[in-house]
Amino acid sequence: MNDGPADDGLLERLRSVVGEEGLRTQAQDLAPALRDWRGRFTGAARALVLPVDTAQASAVLALCHARRIPVVPQGGNTGLAGGATPDAQGRAIVLSTRRLRRIRAVDPHDDTLTAEAGCLLAEVQQAAREAGRLFPLSLAAEGSCTLGGNLATNAGGTQVLRYGNARELTLGIEAVLPDGSVFEGLRGLRKDNSGYDLKQLFIGSEGTLGVITAATLRLFTPPADQAVALAGVASLEQAVALLGQARERLGPALTAFELMSSDCLALLARQTSSRLPPLAAHPWCVLLEAGVHNPEARAADLLEQLGTEALERGRILDMVLARSLAEQEALWAMREGIPGAQARAGGNVKHDVSLPVTAMASVLARIGTALRAIDPCLQPLVFGHLGDGNLHLNVGVVPGQDAARAFALEAQINAVVFDAVLASGGSFSAEHGVGQLRRELARRTLPPVHRSLMAAVKQALDPLGIMNPGKGVA
Amino acid sequence: MNDGPADDGLLERLRSVVGEEGLRTQAQDLAPALRDWRGRFTGAARALVLPVDTAQASAVLALCHARRIPVVPQGGNTGLAGGATPDAQGRAIVLSTRRLRRIRAVDPHDDTLTAEAGCLLAEVQQAAREAGRLFPLSLAAEGSCTLGGNLATNAGGTQVLRYGNARELTLGIEAVLPDGSVFEGLRGLRKDNSGYDLKQLFIGSEGTLGVITAATLRLFTPPADQAVALAGVASLEQAVALLGQARERLGPALTAFELMSSDCLALLARQTSSRLPPLAAHPWCVLLEAGVHNPEARAADLLEQLGTEALERGRILDMVLARSLAEQEALWAMREGIPGAQARAGGNVKHDVSLPVTAMASVLARIGTALRAIDPCLQPLVFGHLGDGNLHLNVGVVPGQDAARAFALEAQINAVVFDAVLASGGSFSAEHGVGQLRRELARRTLPPVHRSLMAAVKQALDPLGIMNPGKGVA
Repeated sequence: MNDGPADDGLLERLRSVVGEEGLRTQAQDLAPALRDWRGRFTGAARALVLPVDTAQASAVLALCHARRIPVVPQGGNTGLAGGATPDAQGRAIVLSTRRLRRIRAVDPHDDTLTAEAGCLLAEVQQAAREAGRLFPLSLAAEGSCTLGGNLATNAGGTQVLRYGNARELTLGIEAVLPDGSVFEGLRGLRKDNSGYDLKQLFIGSEGTLGVITAATLRLFTPPADQAVALAGVASLEQAVALLGQARERLGPALTAFELMSSDCLALLARQTSSRLPPLAAHPWCVLLEAGVHNPEARAADLLEQLGTEALERGRILDMVLARSLAEQEALWAMREGIPGAQARAGGNVKHDVSLPVTAMASVLARIGTALRAIDPCLQPLVFGHLGDGNLHLNVGVVPGQDAARAFALEAQINAVVFDAVLASGGSFSAEHGVGQLRRELARRTLPPVHRSLMAAVKQALDPLGIMNPGKGVA
Repeated sequence: MNDGPADDGLLERLRSVVGEEGLRTQAQDLAPALRDWRGRFTGAARALVLPVDTAQASAVLALCHARRIPVVPQGGNTGLAGGATPDAQGRAIVLSTRRLRRIRAVDPHDDTLTAEAGCLLAEVQQAAREAGRLFPLSLAAEGSCTLGGNLATNAGGTQVLRYGNARELTLGIEAVLPDGSVFEGLRGLRKDNSGYDLKQLFIGSEGTLGVITAATLRLFTPPADQAVALAGVASLEQAVALLGQARERLGPALTAFELMSSDCLALLARQTSSRLPPLAAHPWCVLLEAGVHNPEARAADLLEQLGTEALERGRILDMVLARSLAEQEALWAMREGIPGAQARAGGNVKHDVSLPVTAMASVLARIGTALRAIDPCLQPLVFGHLGDGNLHLNVGVVPGQDAARAFALEAQINAVVFDAVLASGGSFSAEHGVGQLRRELARRTLPPVHRSLMAAVKQALDPLGIMNPGKGVA
């Protein structure tokens, strides 16, 4: 039996660690792991390896390290930057965390939950909920993305405004290092300054420094009452002004502030039978969510008061409040339906940018003008987490045109968007990471000191360079 | 003129960078910088160097780097672990940030503030306040500690429960690296995943990887109304139960939950003429602070409702609500007067530990028993941030005894405290850092993988080992 390019006995040794059920080498079994879900990146690998516990993951890394075999960690394979897809060389193994599925502990008194990397985000949320607690990380892919991927990319989502990114929700990390040694950092302490905070290295490093196998997460008291409203606004400036007012009045009771352009909602309306609220015809819509803990208070009151005040000040055109849980869910479904609608429309050139909120309107106006100059058929489809200064600025084509037209202009579109964003002190990757998609851009635009520090960290933790090569900056 | 041990021209070159006013070499000028404020650590240095801007700091580092001269960064010199005191060799320079004093920018719309490292914490708070915003980091030394020191030690304080540690409040960092190059990372973005999050390296690393020269911080909307209450509880178990109830009912409106033992308060009462509330006679007191944003709500209502419910459930013995701002301040002054009272009583053997809140009561009981077995005159003086699982467990002597008796038993006391804390998954340094004080303990008790990772990071960023040698773990 030929065990691979170098016939180095790797597969046989891997099999002895993870068993038959933990090793896939047949082309049809491997295929889904060699391609990202959008179909933008495809690679090759010797095997897909699925350890069931940290000890197996450690043994797998040690075997690969000894042979200098590249290791590509993969969770739910829902990333948007190709970070979990191996390169084309075929030397690598893909290490899937999908069998690391245990919720190890839930402590509702200490407000901590320890889960393995392969747990789906929705499973983690559910385990917290069953204990009467809230794990607030929430994003469209939560039914298929994994906790490990969320942490490796420092995921954001819809509740960052109130609860922070994945980084802020993580108290402890367990990770296997490139040589197979295990960093045991699963602590649930709120304060610990007994040395460098090593877990920070792994969060957001996209599998380039080691494999996260488990994490201890922060839980929260769920709000006693929640409310959702939809506001129509005339301009992005007004949306930003509304954000300021909502922050002022609600403080931490404001748990989401999501922006949607009328173009996004029109696209959604064309595809779905569900009728959108009349408000959706306004140039921009904002979904606001509020939560209160005091059982004597009503979250809807907060949004109502805000809406009244905002109308008086001319900051919104109209606002509707969801009158039932079903209506709340319908408003969220509208917001969360946008990426899918764009995909069904043939896709577009995606950007996940972050900007100072005060610069948002002028940067977007500048980008709009520049895109029209490239091709009047280009249509920016803008939505996202305005409360965090994070917009998904996807460039498609006006209805009736072929989406391929946008893809053909990708380089020019990117140049317009990234020049404007970087000139305004923004980031070209707010929550999607660098992966393969933004690697060259990152290497070209990050200051040399940043790059050399990243290279130094990479060299320190992964001197052989076996962890997820070709991904990220370093 | 002899310019130092090696007569290497260093002082002359430093003078040409920072001027006469930026260089102190006379013993009487140097003395305050060579000793920590508690007088537990004393060192020696060739000079005290005070750059006025980042360019000067960079040039100072480059000069030292070329000559392999150790550099000890120092801010307000208020640390509790000797992290800013040079060693006894006298080869080092002390780099004081105290002339890096500019508030560079305050943006109340983006909710960011950029300040230089030598700004006092109180100055940063004030600058935020003047812009109608809140910078919530708050601790007893805020009138003399500096922002740079706060970040270098990842300071905690009294508002962590609601707003997080210094790390969570930091959006961007500017730091001078050991070779003098400048890491320009002053971004105010809430989301940025364009590579490794390098600022995390410098926060909490106690000046061992570089010198923080400025930071961009998160601001918040200040609560529209605040209330403070004092609750008397019979036991630590009850205090923990009250914490759970307060979290449940108040959510993010709970902004502080501070524990004080009756022994701490009795010590304070003996020293001050101010009468303490009768509640202070209960075994434990808890200071609760609540803040609300909704202008229609009253923070006092939240604490009153909580108090009523907690009394009914038998979780507290009594509660008093501050009826005026002056009364609020008096309750806070009581809490903040505790460390000073302990210092005036002759000091004690300090511990800054962090524990899962569920383990708190049993661990403290075990420590109390073990301390009495060492010497019945030992008295644990316990206070601190129960809401974060962080207690200051200071071991003094019962009234009438000489404090020296505790110091003579320091090694035994430490062994009792740290054994119990580490066995329960706690940390021996919650918010005070490692410095010199906990270096040997940290090196002895941290797992080998942690230590080797820390050493690898240190080697990667400071291969010559000139940054604050002998401090921290690595």
